[in-house]
Amino acid sequence: MPFCIAVYDVNQKRTGKMLKLFRRYLTWVQNSVFEGDLTPAQLKHLQQEADVLLQDNDGVVFYQLRDERYVERIALGVDITNRSRFL
Amino acid sequence: MPFCIAVYDVNQKRTGKMLKLFRRYLTWVQNSVFEGDLTPAQLKHLQQEADVLLQDNDGVVFYQLRDERYVERIALGVDITNRSRFL
Repeated sequence: MPFCIAVYDVNQKRTGKMLKLFRRYLTWVQNSVFEGDLTPAQLKHLQQEADVLLQDNDGVVFYQLRDERYVERIALGVDITNRSRFL
Repeated sequence: MPFCIAVYDVNQKRTGKMLKLFRRYLTWVQNSVFEGDLTPAQLKHLQQEADVLLQDNDGVVFYQLRDERYVERIALGVDITNRSRFL
């Protein structure tokens, strides 16, 4: 399954809308960081919806992996997702 | 070359120290998000240094990829790293 890490940096006015949007598609990791399984079609929809919200100096970065197996996830300290493979 | 995405969520008292530490190893993407090429040895050092700084509810997540080629990086809006492959 393709795996996606998404991060955004937007004006405070839009953080609420962005959080709501990204949580519809992904798991919230921390602050403005999300991860989860997304098909290429789902990723495209999320990108389109995010693009509509972006203004001024807002920015979003998506890291898309073809397969979750390509990534090793290591968490130190508190991890709200509880998805770590190594602690 | 192995590629690393690192994100942290720490108490405001420690954001300065964390930023300084992570910038020694990686490129700053936005807020508390970093990326870059790291060998397994470098990643281990960064983890050890971060672990010393963590307190209370602080958390750090590292996503380590064996090779940068496994990830497709897509940026929308402002991207301070200018490393996007697609815009």
